[in-house]
Amino acid sequence: MRKLGTVHLVGAGPGDPDLLTLKAARLIETADAVAYDRLVSDAVMEMVPAGAEQVFVGKESGCHHCSQDRINTILLELARRHGTVVRLKGGDPFVFGRGGEEAEFLARHGVEVRVTPGITSAAACGAIAGVPLTHRGLATGVRFVTGHAKGDAPLDLNWKSLADPDTTLVVYMGLATLPRLSAHLIGHGLPSDTPVLAVQNGTTPRERRLLTTLGEAAVSLALARFRPPTLLIIGRVAALADAPELVAEAEAAAPDAAPPAVALAHA
Amino acid sequence: MRKLGTVHLVGAGPGDPDLLTLKAARLIETADAVAYDRLVSDAVMEMVPAGAEQVFVGKESGCHHCSQDRINTILLELARRHGTVVRLKGGDPFVFGRGGEEAEFLARHGVEVRVTPGITSAAACGAIAGVPLTHRGLATGVRFVTGHAKGDAPLDLNWKSLADPDTTLVVYMGLATLPRLSAHLIGHGLPSDTPVLAVQNGTTPRERRLLTTLGEAAVSLALARFRPPTLLIIGRVAALADAPELVAEAEAAAPDAAPPAVALAHA
Repeated sequence: MRKLGTVHLVGAGPGDPDLLTLKAARLIETADAVAYDRLVSDAVMEMVPAGAEQVFVGKESGCHHCSQDRINTILLELARRHGTVVRLKGGDPFVFGRGGEEAEFLARHGVEVRVTPGITSAAACGAIAGVPLTHRGLATGVRFVTGHAKGDAPLDLNWKSLADPDTTLVVYMGLATLPRLSAHLIGHGLPSDTPVLAVQNGTTPRERRLLTTLGEAAVSLALARFRPPTLLIIGRVAALADAPELVAEAEAAAPDAAPPAVALAHA
Repeated sequence: MRKLGTVHLVGAGPGDPDLLTLKAARLIETADAVAYDRLVSDAVMEMVPAGAEQVFVGKESGCHHCSQDRINTILLELARRHGTVVRLKGGDPFVFGRGGEEAEFLARHGVEVRVTPGITSAAACGAIAGVPLTHRGLATGVRFVTGHAKGDAPLDLNWKSLADPDTTLVVYMGLATLPRLSAHLIGHGLPSDTPVLAVQNGTTPRERRLLTTLGEAAVSLALARFRPPTLLIIGRVAALADAPELVAEAEAAAPDAAPPAVALAHA
């Protein structure tokens, strides 16, 4: 049997190719085949060599036409035909990227797997907005959860544990379930005036930001027409995004933003 | 008054310079001045241009000879004398890096501050050990806390919230307080057989790893002579570090490791 190639699970970071690691950039530029999904930015994909095989394995929101089983099979197939396969994942492969499942499947089939970390969206969005994820007196720690749920399925999270005012809560893919998410958190004791920073398409040319509160976030973000992918940073530290030297202007010029974001936030 | 320079708070990542972002590498290579602490690896510091001013602002464990106030003042002073000042921080500047305090201080003094994220130790250690921080059926989310406490001060953490078996708990700087940390977590309901992966000097040539359990971690790591900086990944996902394709060999050859780590882990 022919020797199988190596599959690299590579973090593509938040979108700006400048935030790839040196290692990730080198792997992308020398890949024989690249499998990618919709969270990998066009700017990153432009770095893939012309001769490399490119396979889109994206799951569209609400329409899972490319199941995880199918992705696993595609990766195994690529490893049979190529020496260096790069599986590009938005952000970090091991933070809500299901990289662990792909690694387990491939390893079980005798494929060598290597993991290259990436800048996860929480770190990128904190950096651009000037919001430290931990901060003396404001947040002793930070936690990441996903707001993703299938259809109307309940969000299966430990709300009592999550409603901790001393911890920054970062929610990935939480826009669709935000009304339920904020209701649960407030119901379990997190103050409704807890600051919330929303960042859509962070670090890309289409980036938008809005500072709101837990009680108002669902309505504010709906009115401001925020769309996935949007990251939510919930907690006292989010208020620091107001520091004028670090905070971005409201993205009034964003193509699908109706009124300026700041006007909404303080309406 | 002369125009002040720009201070870039730059994540130096876990140690391996290959895990710097492209942006961080460029900033380091073009800096006029670099302030760095002991968590920034020698390999990263070798990238600093020969002509750049280098200032060590490290806080040694247990001996805070360089206070945060002093660091702030040094950064301001550097911004008065240089155009591009790079403040290098191990990992990510906004995850237990006190970057928020430095940014606030500098902004208050009229200095332009930019933040470049870095690969935080949790992501790096997860990647090298093959441990996904989130994983279907094992962890719905991940949280980062610090075990650092001054002297015998109590660890001021919300233990009830932390003892959540469905969340991966990553502890930065937790070696010294591990006996108290594990006792609190077990006391609040986290099973004592919860897997714990310890990684010392992750991604550097002196990297060491040990897989143990919450109940045995304090003793196992003491016997194996683990030293700071050591990261702890606590939770069901840590058990995946056993997957032979991804897990590292026990670092029996490490200079200060007495018996092989694996023998200890299963003793």
